[in-house]
Amino acid sequence: MDNTIKQIPYHKVEQTSGFWYNWFVTNRDITINSVYNRFKETGRIEAMKHHWKEGDPHKPHIFFDSDLAKWIEGAAYHLHYRRDTALEEKVDEIVNLIETGRDEHGYFNSYFQQFEQDQRWKQRDSHELYCAGHLLEAAIAYAESTGKKLFLNLMIDYMDYIYQVFYVDQNAAFSTPGHQEIELALIKLYRYNGQQKYLDLAAYFVDTRGQESSKYYGKWYAQSQAPVSDQVDAQGHSVRFGYLFASAADLAKERQDIKLFMACQRVLRDVADRKMYVSGGVGSLSYGETFGYPYILPNKEAYTETCASISLAMVYNRMLSLDVDGEYSDLMELELYNGALAGISLKGDSFTYENPLEVIYKDVQFKEIVGAPTRPYARQEVFSCSCCPPNISRLLASLSGYQYGSSEDTIYAHLFSSSKAEIELSAALVGIEQTTNYPWSGEIDFTISMNQKSVWTLAVRIPGWSSSHTITVNGTEITPLIKKGYAFIQRKWEEGDTVHLSLPLEVIELESHPLIAEDAGKVAIKVGPLLYCAEECDNDERLWDYVINKETEYSLEWRNDLLGGVNTVSAMVKMRKGSFEKQGLYRQWSPQYSEKKLIFVPYYSWCNREPGNMSVWFRKEI
Amino acid sequence: MDNTIKQIPYHKVEQTSGFWYNWFVTNRDITINSVYNRFKETGRIEAMKHHWKEGDPHKPHIFFDSDLAKWIEGAAYHLHYRRDTALEEKVDEIVNLIETGRDEHGYFNSYFQQFEQDQRWKQRDSHELYCAGHLLEAAIAYAESTGKKLFLNLMIDYMDYIYQVFYVDQNAAFSTPGHQEIELALIKLYRYNGQQKYLDLAAYFVDTRGQESSKYYGKWYAQSQAPVSDQVDAQGHSVRFGYLFASAADLAKERQDIKLFMACQRVLRDVADRKMYVSGGVGSLSYGETFGYPYILPNKEAYTETCASISLAMVYNRMLSLDVDGEYSDLMELELYNGALAGISLKGDSFTYENPLEVIYKDVQFKEIVGAPTRPYARQEVFSCSCCPPNISRLLASLSGYQYGSSEDTIYAHLFSSSKAEIELSAALVGIEQTTNYPWSGEIDFTISMNQKSVWTLAVRIPGWSSSHTITVNGTEITPLIKKGYAFIQRKWEEGDTVHLSLPLEVIELESHPLIAEDAGKVAIKVGPLLYCAEECDNDERLWDYVINKETEYSLEWRNDLLGGVNTVSAMVKMRKGSFEKQGLYRQWSPQYSEKKLIFVPYYSWCNREPGNMSVWFRKEI
Repeated sequence: MDNTIKQIPYHKVEQTSGFWYNWFVTNRDITINSVYNRFKETGRIEAMKHHWKEGDPHKPHIFFDSDLAKWIEGAAYHLHYRRDTALEEKVDEIVNLIETGRDEHGYFNSYFQQFEQDQRWKQRDSHELYCAGHLLEAAIAYAESTGKKLFLNLMIDYMDYIYQVFYVDQNAAFSTPGHQEIELALIKLYRYNGQQKYLDLAAYFVDTRGQESSKYYGKWYAQSQAPVSDQVDAQGHSVRFGYLFASAADLAKERQDIKLFMACQRVLRDVADRKMYVSGGVGSLSYGETFGYPYILPNKEAYTETCASISLAMVYNRMLSLDVDGEYSDLMELELYNGALAGISLKGDSFTYENPLEVIYKDVQFKEIVGAPTRPYARQEVFSCSCCPPNISRLLASLSGYQYGSSEDTIYAHLFSSSKAEIELSAALVGIEQTTNYPWSGEIDFTISMNQKSVWTLAVRIPGWSSSHTITVNGTEITPLIKKGYAFIQRKWEEGDTVHLSLPLEVIELESHPLIAEDAGKVAIKVGPLLYCAEECDNDERLWDYVINKETEYSLEWRNDLLGGVNTVSAMVKMRKGSFEKQGLYRQWSPQYSEKKLIFVPYYSWCNREPGNMSVWFRKEI
Repeated sequence: MDNTIKQIPYHKVEQTSGFWYNWFVTNRDITINSVYNRFKETGRIEAMKHHWKEGDPHKPHIFFDSDLAKWIEGAAYHLHYRRDTALEEKVDEIVNLIETGRDEHGYFNSYFQQFEQDQRWKQRDSHELYCAGHLLEAAIAYAESTGKKLFLNLMIDYMDYIYQVFYVDQNAAFSTPGHQEIELALIKLYRYNGQQKYLDLAAYFVDTRGQESSKYYGKWYAQSQAPVSDQVDAQGHSVRFGYLFASAADLAKERQDIKLFMACQRVLRDVADRKMYVSGGVGSLSYGETFGYPYILPNKEAYTETCASISLAMVYNRMLSLDVDGEYSDLMELELYNGALAGISLKGDSFTYENPLEVIYKDVQFKEIVGAPTRPYARQEVFSCSCCPPNISRLLASLSGYQYGSSEDTIYAHLFSSSKAEIELSAALVGIEQTTNYPWSGEIDFTISMNQKSVWTLAVRIPGWSSSHTITVNGTEITPLIKKGYAFIQRKWEEGDTVHLSLPLEVIELESHPLIAEDAGKVAIKVGPLLYCAEECDNDERLWDYVINKETEYSLEWRNDLLGGVNTVSAMVKMRKGSFEKQGLYRQWSPQYSEKKLIFVPYYSWCNREPGNMSVWFRKEI
């Protein structure tokens, strides 16, 4: 535990232009409103009035409150940067409904209070504590951003009640949440107001897990197969897994718990080494939204929920502050640019829940028509289980909180994005301005400002994907120490010093592990942090019949007009001719090939044009 | 309709040795008893006593009667060749239960009579007519083989009642069966006793289809999307499809109905050109056991029910007598040796319901443990829906009925199998003895015997898979006319004439149609009529990492000790090395290959040893 650093919170960093800034603006101007409107239309706000009756539309569901909570959390982050009366009125209306609806204990749950009064704290798997946790996260963010304390005070009452029931009296029918989330929210509260009881409760929930089972699917499903500190692999529902280990990482940090920290390391090793798609997606099985067997990563059937990638980004961000290591920043970046971002449309108003790595569109269409189980193809504005839309919204609103870390004398730059940050070191209050067109360019400028000249270290991440880099300070190339994926630039800094990091963007062909059956003989294309895919609308329908030549020259082309502006990748490759003179489906092997251009676009941008086939993995000549 | 011929029925042909004879014996000595015992243990016989009460095990299911009926039909075919008192007692016990249990109309249905008396003829999709049809088929076979008429008489009573309800009074709640089967049984009865009313009823059921819908899944599910004569493609439940078009082919023949014949041609063209696995398997979707979208033929997820291949073999056998064309015999042979035969274990006592073309065993195991939907891996002795075991049993017992056809002056040899047949031509009563080690050898001898010298034609099938052949008559090579896949040897035949057909066996690499995504860049191996696959127990676990060289020398080796005696195919091929030094699942493309032997066994023989991965399609260097 000798490598821990501070996370620099979102409110110390402001995006100023470029990739994530654009997403921040889209989120603020489109997503926040769109998600709110859909939630209002689908009864999620009405549900909080606790007057639903048989025959009314939109019967409140067990997770409705959490949907609104995540939406508030995202809205709150935006309010930090720009207050917005209309938006605050919407939040305050919800807060007022909570104040009105809560009972004498401070308990508030739109589902249980209306439909299962006698079932309070009796159904481990009904998301009761999960909703409470999300409400608490929202309340903290809203208090931080606006200074308004009502919501937070309501939630503190609620947490005190939960503390009494679960920690003091221990008279609930279960002892740990079926769906984790409240643990990390409680640690946030502890960090916010310093009251030990909330950390104690969070620790109780984390430490007790593994001693009672979920009624669904068996113990493994909600990571109850063993005490968390003893867990060795990633099992069960992937979002629950993510939230649990985000909490575990926080807890390990708070109490300097090496055993718990090592459990986090072990299970994350298992994820990255055996259970992760090249997109960062996890949870291959739609059944139970769970991790599958090691190395079983089917592309078409991939479940890979958007929320699972978001939850892993949250875990990696926390792990970075426990053990600053470029592998975590690489994985965090992978999730942000790919697994998570694929979940929202470029316009910002529609979403995917599942994120496959291959689509055979006619198969999906056909199955939809006949009613057979299939992945949905089109993005939707709201789902009946609508966890992902507000989750990606709160992520995009809070991405500034993923960019930097610091120790007493070192600033760690994890992510590259044009932004301004203010970071307090023991020697100085440092301002850092990043200017970059990342990920479309690998050129990153840092400009330093300070209240006084001082000696400290700027540790700039050298991404795992880059095969070479150059660093200059005030125009002079330097070769700083590189350790665990970070370049440590120690010097006496002066106002206006500049650092330039150059990471040449290359098209990289990835090979998958030999135990992954599905990708054998195929390559996936990455450029910088971005995974690429090919869509039918840019190519031939038969994406499976392209074969990338042994030696291939790829072109990288900036296309301002395409998909909101992207670098495309293209190459002349072989393609099997489509003629098949014989009747029937099979003939003696005699494929003919011609040269054809294959065009790739960033994976996050797929499913924003005409529907059609999509693939990430392409056959490669050997 | 100028190319119709007679089918030579099973009782005119007797298997004498070799491949199908061995299966005939296995079926007679093992399968018949094993299926009976499992059916008895699982209450299928008890169900016919109509005294099941709540709390008893094995509540009768809607298709129980049909399971027993198919078992009787298979047993009956064996009784033709060898009477067996013990076996007949088992059949007679069932017949007696039917006699006792039937009502005053002759109606017998173990499910409806016990549980849904008031629902008789009201539930189109509850297999009522399907069970009746199978019972009728069984009764005809039993009467033919043993001369015992009780069962048939009971069934004739039953059919007369069905005729009255559905054809005369038309007062059932539906007009065509939800699951086809009775149509072809009725035509069998018409052919057996010549009574027009049974043909009329069959014709009514076939012709009326397309005017009412199944309550399940929509009209397409039970081929009710259009009148049968107007149908253009293969839709819906694949076994229902097979039985329907077997009936349609029979009906087209009986009434020389060109329109219906052309519908059969069209839909079968659609199956062979767009919806069939290389194994002959059809019905790619487990949802509804239905045909999927054209060219969507996933290997791991393939449903490809054993019964669907059996039903297609039945259709092709009938089409051969409507339009004698080698393409039908090729497809019939494909189904028999592969899609159907894969459904029974070598020992003859256990079965598959679904027949995938690829298995990732650890994935299946894992899904079974966590309860996720998956293909079963192991063969089972009985299923809750146990249509396939007695279906493959009745097929193996009746295969002699698939071997020959005849017109006035021509004998058509469709299949190759050591056997004796007696076929009546206008000029002579001809005996044909075939001697062959097919499919392990392509050398086939025919020896002719006759009651008198006469001029006629022996039309010997030249399989579509053979690239060359030689034919000798009494040792002298001849080059007869080849038409639609048959070599027409016309001569004045004398007692003891011999014909030798030589079809050199070669290992053929098949390429799939460019619209089949899943098999792109891969080859499937066939030798003669047999499809091959590779199993983990003969090879490396990573079947997906073998790459067959551009120029490959295959070896064919007879292995007497293996899988009951099979030709194996093997080749030295490339294999990706399994080391992956880097942590994580993806690295820059840098595969290393070594030479390794890849061993194939016949597809029908898979899943008879230690469980493990299996694959039919293998990557091929281009």
